Amino acid sequence: MIGFRSDNSSPAHPAVLQAVCDSNEGAELSYGDDRWSARLNETFSELFGTEAWVVPAVTGTAANALSLAALAGPTDAAYVHEESHISHDECNAPEFFTGGTKIVTLGGGGAKFDAARLEKASDVKADVHRAAPRVVSVTQATELGTLYTLEELRSIAEVARRRKMRLHMDGARFANAVAALGCEPAEMTWKLGFDAVSFGGTKNGCLMAEAVVLFDRSPLVELQRRAKRAGQLLSKMRFLSAQLLAYVRDGLWLDNARHANRMNRTLAERLRGLGIEPALEPEANMTFVPLGRAARDALKGAGFDTGRDGDAPVRLCASWCTREEDIDRLAALLRG
Amino acid sequence: MIGFRSDNSSPAHPAVLQAVCDSNEGAELSYGDDRWSARLNETFSELFGTEAWVVPAVTGTAANALSLAALAGPTDAAYVHEESHISHDECNAPEFFTGGTKIVTLGGGGAKFDAARLEKASDVKADVHRAAPRVVSVTQATELGTLYTLEELRSIAEVARRRKMRLHMDGARFANAVAALGCEPAEMTWKLGFDAVSFGGTKNGCLMAEAVVLFDRSPLVELQRRAKRAGQLLSKMRFLSAQLLAYVRDGLWLDNARHANRMNRTLAERLRGLGIEPALEPEANMTFVPLGRAARDALKGAGFDTGRDGDAPVRLCASWCTREEDIDRLAALLRG
Amino acid sequence: MIGFRSDNSSPAHPAVLQAVCDSNEGAELSYGDDRWSARLNETFSELFGTEAWVVPAVTGTAANALSLAALAGPTDAAYVHEESHISHDECNAPEFFTGGTKIVTLGGGGAKFDAARLEKASDVKADVHRAAPRVVSVTQATELGTLYTLEELRSIAEVARRRKMRLHMDGARFANAVAALGCEPAEMTWKLGFDAVSFGGTKNGCLMAEAVVLFDRSPLVELQRRAKRAGQLLSKMRFLSAQLLAYVRDGLWLDNARHANRMNRTLAERLRGLGIEPALEPEANMTFVPLGRAARDALKGAGFDTGRDGDAPVRLCASWCTREEDIDRLAALLRG
Amino acid sequence: MIGFRSDNSSPAHPAVLQAVCDSNEGAELSYGDDRWSARLNETFSELFGTEAWVVPAVTGTAANALSLAALAGPTDAAYVHEESHISHDECNAPEFFTGGTKIVTLGGGGAKFDAARLEKASDVKADVHRAAPRVVSVTQATELGTLYTLEELRSIAEVARRRKMRLHMDGARFANAVAALGCEPAEMTWKLGFDAVSFGGTKNGCLMAEAVVLFDRSPLVELQRRAKRAGQLLSKMRFLSAQLLAYVRDGLWLDNARHANRMNRTLAERLRGLGIEPALEPEANMTFVPLGRAARDALKGAGFDTGRDGDAPVRLCASWCTREEDIDRLAALLRG
Repeated sequence: MIGFRSDNSSPAHPAVLQAVCDSNEGAELSYGDDRWSARLNETFSELFGTEAWVVPAVTGTAANALSLAALAGPTDAAYVHEESHISHDECNAPEFFTGGTKIVTLGGGGAKFDAARLEKASDVKADVHRAAPRVVSVTQATELGTLYTLEELRSIAEVARRRKMRLHMDGARFANAVAALGCEPAEMTWKLGFDAVSFGGTKNGCLMAEAVVLFDRSPLVELQRRAKRAGQLLSKMRFLSAQLLAYVRDGLWLDNARHANRMNRTLAERLRGLGIEPALEPEANMTFVPLGRAARDALKGAGFDTGRDGDAPVRLCASWCTREEDIDRLAALLRG
Repeated sequence: MIGFRSDNSSPAHPAVLQAVCDSNEGAELSYGDDRWSARLNETFSELFGTEAWVVPAVTGTAANALSLAALAGPTDAAYVHEESHISHDECNAPEFFTGGTKIVTLGGGGAKFDAARLEKASDVKADVHRAAPRVVSVTQATELGTLYTLEELRSIAEVARRRKMRLHMDGARFANAVAALGCEPAEMTWKLGFDAVSFGGTKNGCLMAEAVVLFDRSPLVELQRRAKRAGQLLSKMRFLSAQLLAYVRDGLWLDNARHANRMNRTLAERLRGLGIEPALEPEANMTFVPLGRAARDALKGAGFDTGRDGDAPVRLCASWCTREEDIDRLAALLRG
Repeated sequence: MIGFRSDNSSPAHPAVLQAVCDSNEGAELSYGDDRWSARLNETFSELFGTEAWVVPAVTGTAANALSLAALAGPTDAAYVHEESHISHDECNAPEFFTGGTKIVTLGGGGAKFDAARLEKASDVKADVHRAAPRVVSVTQATELGTLYTLEELRSIAEVARRRKMRLHMDGARFANAVAALGCEPAEMTWKLGFDAVSFGGTKNGCLMAEAVVLFDRSPLVELQRRAKRAGQLLSKMRFLSAQLLAYVRDGLWLDNARHANRMNRTLAERLRGLGIEPALEPEANMTFVPLGRAARDALKGAGFDTGRDGDAPVRLCASWCTREEDIDRLAALLRG
Repeated sequence: MIGFRSDNSSPAHPAVLQAVCDSNEGAELSYGDDRWSARLNETFSELFGTEAWVVPAVTGTAANALSLAALAGPTDAAYVHEESHISHDECNAPEFFTGGTKIVTLGGGGAKFDAARLEKASDVKADVHRAAPRVVSVTQATELGTLYTLEELRSIAEVARRRKMRLHMDGARFANAVAALGCEPAEMTWKLGFDAVSFGGTKNGCLMAEAVVLFDRSPLVELQRRAKRAGQLLSKMRFLSAQLLAYVRDGLWLDNARHANRMNRTLAERLRGLGIEPALEPEANMTFVPLGRAARDALKGAGFDTGRDGDAPVRLCASWCTREEDIDRLAALLRG
């Protein structure tokens, strides 16, 4: 059952692992001068339909914190949702990488804030006393498995544009969002004005591969230096870049995400059949369900961490490798 | 020829890669709660013959900077050699991770400083104006391929002990040093008073696997938090821990290093036969040789970076996978 | 009218200025080894009725940020009110001095949070992903001129104690709070469990003199080093310490605050007489009043900054040197 | 005798103190919006004969660290002399304020480095691994009381220009240097290409008043924010700005420095008459003299700190208020 705890529990996709194995051939230049890394910019430029620059990282925490550091300085403010990974799952990495950017949290249901909240919060007198509004970061899909519609993103981007703030997307589940919205990567990002995306690979089939994707070249050189400074520049970078290439080649990233989303919908339907109504409409690959004592205990018995709060909905997470039979077993367990 | 440029140019050892593949089975707990990570402390405790605690990292830069941050604070000083990786190959990672520890550089031939220099430099008035002497870091084997003898380390450790400073070893080439000295890991580290070691795996057969090894538990919890904060805690940590386990299992780490050192000796002998005398006695897996214009050009033509300074010795680096025939070809090239 | 804009607009009290002049005699040891600085600990120990240690600073921002840095580390969290000076009037100084402590904001009317909010917010799973709850900071009197009752402080302190968090008081208007509550400094601080106080002098009669007062010696040495590192250790420290001594000698601090509070009450009554009802019950030396267009314009014409938001209450601030006739003139102006 | 220990031991000049008293009149806008602060830019522009921008600070440590932070970023390197205040008298303030700029130390006699050393040290490969050469800081007059000639400064500036590095002058004793060289402030600074000066006032007659003087406006806004963030922006800034105005008005700064330099020359001559030969030719207001046991003991008995190292020369420091009779008494003491 622990597979449903997190998409981080899933193994790597065989094609990604095979790419790692294939790259293990002979001598190769180090620190990103290898043949795999050389193809990253072009590959992602194609994926996004515009010129893009890629800085790989081994974790989403690093990708997010590097992105923020590329866009904001130590006397600036970044706006994020109060339930975002950046806000409370990264052990202060954002404050660390940025040298002290203030992380301002916004509320809003379903782990989403809207343009109005952003507008109000960033209406700050421009003086020496206050952190300067500089970056807005949205998580897509969110930590609660919900999605910003393109229209919602556009409204947020409009506030950012007006206030001269930059836009970052925490795309740890970028693929699940694109799969669910059925849009092009471009439509969800740079066409709306996004400057940088943390493009996630690990949860959706990689071993440890994330990428900061920039649509503006100006922060690139400093970002690369910051990545080195953070110990994110692998000496044998081929093993990371090869993952990213395999992950986006032939649409694997999207196929994996579509599967995960589909399995999640199947799971949600099955649960509804059991009388368990999701707390939020499942839009990507996660479903949050209120569970009674017995169901929680059953999950715990199967190695699941149901959290400390007996009343909080439990997160069930489908991944690229979830099978129908896994859902059958989970349903059987919850049926009691 | 580029294989000789750096041990970072070598691929991963098949056994390490196989371990990664083997760990790619089914669902597994994330963020270090997996079965592979669970065995790290025990495995390294056995290796070092004392209780040890391990925090994995993906780069030597991260391992070093995390180690320093575990041992020193923002108003402290750390003493390192002026040619050390910490001093000028990590793009200020030590200053970054520590929150501003002063990195004080010491001179000395062969990239080694001695106890007398350390004693003099750390003879600092204990007041509010000066960084407090707190950590000493030695690189073993050094960046110039030389070795501190156990006696030299003991003298340095004695100064550290007297001054109440902590001891760190940058062991990016730890295996090469142990292989060359023919000592036990314990004799080169905690038995001399070392508190922490950056135990390198990447250069010697891993894909991307380093470990901070602590011999004192007290900094552990904060170190783990710092690793998370630095984006070094992989969600699918099994893929990193499995490398470390395979690397130290059955002495692979030491076999690889012995081979690299032996190939390096062979190379040095061959070069001497060609009338090329190493600038320093090769003690581990690297040889620095003064080369004339023609030889430099030949290397460059074969993809080698011979540096900007036409007079500086060129580094030739053997690795776990260097073969006799590689040496033959290099010798042929340099013979002109 | 600008005197009412802020207590920072007031001059220094003659007795404090005289003390500065008196200390300007002959040669004196530097960096806090002078005769004035030597008496700080004793003077404040007497004031607080317990052993206390003092680190002077020139601004409240520095005193607050140093206090937080003394109590929290880079992977910790500090809890403050969302309208607090620490949260949004210090241009990220807290993040800077602490090396990245997460500043978590709590809501609550009158710029006060209560024990329940603190309890909920700090109920954080103790793992490597989340900032560790470490410090609670309350502002007394608050930025809105309200006061925490001793009972409210006790409840907050009880949560802190249970959660093993440390307690800091931003006492930029400490004197006004003590004057208003009619309690002993001890009752409002260490007797409740407070570990550190930013003891303000500047707003209430000093030129530039604040003090971090510690009731626990353990963070002292590092705090002094951090003060030096922040450029807060004056070479001619006598000129700062002499201010602090004069300020607390013979109860000047309390007399000044009582006067300011009294003038504020007088002002509030006068305004009520004009039909202007304060937005909050004025408890210390500040009154926030909703003002119509004409009154705002009249204030602006007299050099007052009434803020950008035409609907927000305007802050009127009494100080140690406010005179009845100043209130007369202000009332005349607002009467229109 | 303690007056000779340091120019920081001297009191404030009466004219500066009087200016502080004079500024203590009535209500005034806070945080630098006062009438005194408003005249700083113009006053210093006149002093330097070019448009200049001023950010006041209360200590030289803050002025230096803010200057470096204005000119260098976290992945950069700053070059300073190994005996400089920045290197080892500021408890890591430079690393702190800059967010981790690497402070690279250069050797050289008399606490001066030359262009050749700078050229060699800053000849760094421009890649992601190494701190980028960004700032050069010279102390004028130096910590050993020596002076860079204009020609020496020009050579250093030429290297900086060629390498695209910025230039900072630690002018804690700027006045003493200008007095000794007999040049215009402009000739020693911006005309040579200096971007920023830490203009010292405290040692030479102020209470606590230093200024970062910029000759390029571009870093100004961020510098002001950094000053606020560091707790250096006084709420009652008039008390600091009034000092700076009085200090440079009517040439007081230069008169004071000339007096100090003259007294120092007198002292050196007197000592030579006693057979005590200065270790370095005294060029500004400090003389370093080798002293025997008896002389050291005599000084100690008079409250002097002669240092821990019995063989190191003792620093004797004249100031704006040193009188002939003070020298007589010191000579008498040393004569034994």
